[in-house]
Amino acid sequence: MDYSAHLDEALTRLHEEGRYRTFIDIERRRGQFPHAVWTRPNGSEQQITVWCGNDYLGMGQHPVVLSAMHEALEATGAGSGGTRNISGTTVYHKRLEAELADLHQKEAALLFTSAYIANDATLSTLPKLFPGLIIYSDALNHASMIEGIRRNGGAKRIFKHNDLEDLRAKLEADDPAAPKLIAFESVYSMDGDFGPIEAICDLAEEFGALTYLDEVHAVGMYGPRGGGVAERDRLLDRIDIVNGTLGKAFGVHGGYIAASEKMCDAIRSYAPGFIFTTSLPPVVAAGAAASVAHLKTDQELRDAHQTQAKILKTRLRGLGLPLIDHGSHIVPVIVGDPVHTKALSDMLLADHGIYVQPINFPTVPRGTERLRFTPSPVHGPREMDALVTALDALWSHCALNRADLTG
Amino acid sequence: MDYSAHLDEALTRLHEEGRYRTFIDIERRRGQFPHAVWTRPNGSEQQITVWCGNDYLGMGQHPVVLSAMHEALEATGAGSGGTRNISGTTVYHKRLEAELADLHQKEAALLFTSAYIANDATLSTLPKLFPGLIIYSDALNHASMIEGIRRNGGAKRIFKHNDLEDLRAKLEADDPAAPKLIAFESVYSMDGDFGPIEAICDLAEEFGALTYLDEVHAVGMYGPRGGGVAERDRLLDRIDIVNGTLGKAFGVHGGYIAASEKMCDAIRSYAPGFIFTTSLPPVVAAGAAASVAHLKTDQELRDAHQTQAKILKTRLRGLGLPLIDHGSHIVPVIVGDPVHTKALSDMLLADHGIYVQPINFPTVPRGTERLRFTPSPVHGPREMDALVTALDALWSHCALNRADLTG
Repeated sequence: MDYSAHLDEALTRLHEEGRYRTFIDIERRRGQFPHAVWTRPNGSEQQITVWCGNDYLGMGQHPVVLSAMHEALEATGAGSGGTRNISGTTVYHKRLEAELADLHQKEAALLFTSAYIANDATLSTLPKLFPGLIIYSDALNHASMIEGIRRNGGAKRIFKHNDLEDLRAKLEADDPAAPKLIAFESVYSMDGDFGPIEAICDLAEEFGALTYLDEVHAVGMYGPRGGGVAERDRLLDRIDIVNGTLGKAFGVHGGYIAASEKMCDAIRSYAPGFIFTTSLPPVVAAGAAASVAHLKTDQELRDAHQTQAKILKTRLRGLGLPLIDHGSHIVPVIVGDPVHTKALSDMLLADHGIYVQPINFPTVPRGTERLRFTPSPVHGPREMDALVTALDALWSHCALNRADLTG
Repeated sequence: MDYSAHLDEALTRLHEEGRYRTFIDIERRRGQFPHAVWTRPNGSEQQITVWCGNDYLGMGQHPVVLSAMHEALEATGAGSGGTRNISGTTVYHKRLEAELADLHQKEAALLFTSAYIANDATLSTLPKLFPGLIIYSDALNHASMIEGIRRNGGAKRIFKHNDLEDLRAKLEADDPAAPKLIAFESVYSMDGDFGPIEAICDLAEEFGALTYLDEVHAVGMYGPRGGGVAERDRLLDRIDIVNGTLGKAFGVHGGYIAASEKMCDAIRSYAPGFIFTTSLPPVVAAGAAASVAHLKTDQELRDAHQTQAKILKTRLRGLGLPLIDHGSHIVPVIVGDPVHTKALSDMLLADHGIYVQPINFPTVPRGTERLRFTPSPVHGPREMDALVTALDALWSHCALNRADLTG
């Protein structure tokens, strides 16, 4: 058996399709976000501006977060040293879970090592708790939800993205007595569009289904206390399980669900992905708790974030760029071809010191390859001008050469 | 549909079987490991000694680890702000991967957010790379390996724990042309026994199978540079994929695989659990890299660790306790009943300030419930005396009451 040949084949496929990923090696400079240093493969360095991070509010350099982390390191050391059950539950984890339960106005919250594993572990465990569970999943749900839903081979129905008619038809087609769960997102990260939360909750109520809402691209950023779109729309009490991350707007790391006491207790007790893994380092929990607490009151930062997104969209629209705008903080510009997207990204980085990663399949459907900008309050007018100018120049340049590129 | 009733049922089942888990809320004190503070459910505090952590060498409080983490926090902030592909690859990640590749004498290493997800993501991705792959899995493999192997419904054969005859029989029964992989561990954490690495490598060679070795309970602790049991036994070059953790002996957090350049490149490119998740915080990567580098030279700490385990085992054997001893650093004492184990653990904690978590199903098979002690270089003679004295007293006490307890 020639294992090496199989690996070659798998890698060649990616190269041929123009979707082989090259990781850009960067180091952000604390206190100077969004500025960073790019280390080229040859070891040389270049100053760059990051325009594609998910530290949406710049909390990763916020003094309250960093001082909480320095303190925890001093007090309790580096790692947790165990699983949650075996010496790895600390006051830091408990405090953070209380902070998160309060954020979502739920009885309890449960920390996971990432929001990916929170989705995967929770969605794959629910069928054990509710035998015969049918999961209705939005077609554009995140990979972690898809993996969780698929894991144990339970019943699933994929409904068309944000399509209430299709969801209703699928709910109607199933046994009214079967346990059901509708899994969807509040902000879909690649297009930046919103899920119709209220209408889905109405359907859930009508058909006796549980609701599972992924708010990873909304927590910290929407709602008067950063509780997400469900908080903004006053729908928190209609969501049974909220999934969130501590690694995007909260600027640190880890993920969680918030739900009823009983639900969290059951997931905690039955999910291998929760049970059999070292808990988050106390230092990470401490930083995240400080960030969550801070963002419960810093509406100014949320407003600044939305303003930045509006300004960037207005300016890019002025250039005639093929922008997707659903009124969220995410600014995707469609290029529609993996090779072109990569070329644009490379030119922005090398010639303009602007880092925006090309987004290609399987992260987005083929043919919708894009540059995805994430303006934040740390991007000042100078950074914004530089980006707009660079894109303007590059778009002209590529328009001139478009025939060559497609040929 | 009464969802709440289903949750009640699931939770009642655990209570009835005596295996409902109560997390003990602790805070270790940096510089004073293994001492910690236990916060009782009523909020009151008690000084305790941790005897069940997986920070086997006390690296979680080591100055080189903590200063690397403080520095990284100062330099680059809290979280990474993105997936590895989208702004979340930093010099800290690259440095750590280089450190780990060197540790295992492999061309490359690949970081994951945990060793759990490293196992799950890698083992579930391999069948995509080698169509028709048959995975031969030791019956006592960790939950994360089981989950990874089961995930995509690929072909699997479970061989009896450490049973070479059974493994051979299963290899012989399959198509010689089929791609194969043998997945096993170097140290099985609950019994502390070793996998027969060399003999399994021989079988792998004979049958043209890849080898996948989980060294999470060995890295840092075995081998002249902490490369694990495979390094100690000079078998590194016969292992195709090594899995390791940064959250046990290295004292920090995260997991990884080390393998050939091509293998890591393919896993990196095809594993959703690697692609679609925020990368480890730079601060965590920095601490882990410092720890790995340090342990490449600190043989004294490894020796002290083994000495501590030998002393504890000798002393417990002197008390006539039902010890499992396979010559590793793990010291399990079998109780054999979930309720008794929990009672012993509770008494040790409340009356003696000794924290050792009861280990019950599904972590170990029913009927083998146990207390699992993890002596480390930070446990001094005073802590050791206190433990031995407490166990002696308690064992007498429970022997007196054994009829009552079992009645």
